[in-house]
Amino acid sequence: MALTIRSAGRDDAETILAFIRELAAYEREPQAVETSAAILAQQLASPRPPFECLLAEEGRAAQGFALYFHNYSTWRGRPGLYLEDLYVRPEHRRRGVGLALLKELARLARERGCARMEWAVLDWNKPAIDFYLKLGAVPLAEWTTFRLDGEQLRRLAEE
Amino acid sequence: MALTIRSAGRDDAETILAFIRELAAYEREPQAVETSAAILAQQLASPRPPFECLLAEEGRAAQGFALYFHNYSTWRGRPGLYLEDLYVRPEHRRRGVGLALLKELARLARERGCARMEWAVLDWNKPAIDFYLKLGAVPLAEWTTFRLDGEQLRRLAEE
Repeated sequence: MALTIRSAGRDDAETILAFIRELAAYEREPQAVETSAAILAQQLASPRPPFECLLAEEGRAAQGFALYFHNYSTWRGRPGLYLEDLYVRPEHRRRGVGLALLKELARLARERGCARMEWAVLDWNKPAIDFYLKLGAVPLAEWTTFRLDGEQLRRLAEE
Repeated sequence: MALTIRSAGRDDAETILAFIRELAAYEREPQAVETSAAILAQQLASPRPPFECLLAEEGRAAQGFALYFHNYSTWRGRPGLYLEDLYVRPEHRRRGVGLALLKELARLARERGCARMEWAVLDWNKPAIDFYLKLGAVPLAEWTTFRLDGEQLRRLAEE
């Protein structure tokens, strides 16, 4: 059967949750997933979903997913496409599934007038880094992302 | 006069453009700004603006800005607030303008049910890094952002 790529809808919430959990385990943070299928379904059905998602399938078997949203470049004056999660199940790797997902994202990005695609990679994930470099992606090596959450975020908001 | 923080609208496009250019110069990329006041005004007036912006003012004098949009955390199942640009004019620094902008962003993030705030910092910008660490922000040191744009993006989309 042929590989197909399609946009996910609310009925795919369980599939997406399974992928999110498998990716968290691969990233060595299996306990980090707090979300649920009900939350994902509600967000996907909302008038302005906070994310979009592509599924790679062969027949009815989901092999991988790409979850994304739009960011914005002030220098370019245009939106960008930010890829939050990309994952292909181990038994389906090395057969072009990840590339097919990235190609469809690149097509969408150009169709929507985006200046670029961006995503974050764990520094120990050498197979992924090699793959991205081969596509012509460039690491933003001199930038570090900072995060503020939990008690620190509350304190800043309320102090 | 007291410092006020307010949301920017389409009439603030010239002010925002000036801040974007000053920040690009501070980041040693003065030639990188391709956008225009017309583009910013059009985007701010659109039904779904691709960004939002806070302005810090004393009277009618704009002293700094914070430009942001929403990202999404799959693990938390909630949106986040991503701060794309934060800038305070040199003559107004060290008087709490940046902190006032960050506090208002933190307040907005909590009001909107965001899991966190995130932003990227240039590794040589030690004054900024020290300031963020003092607020309790954590550097995501093991992640690197990859970017695909221009000819490489076109090739991936079309090949």
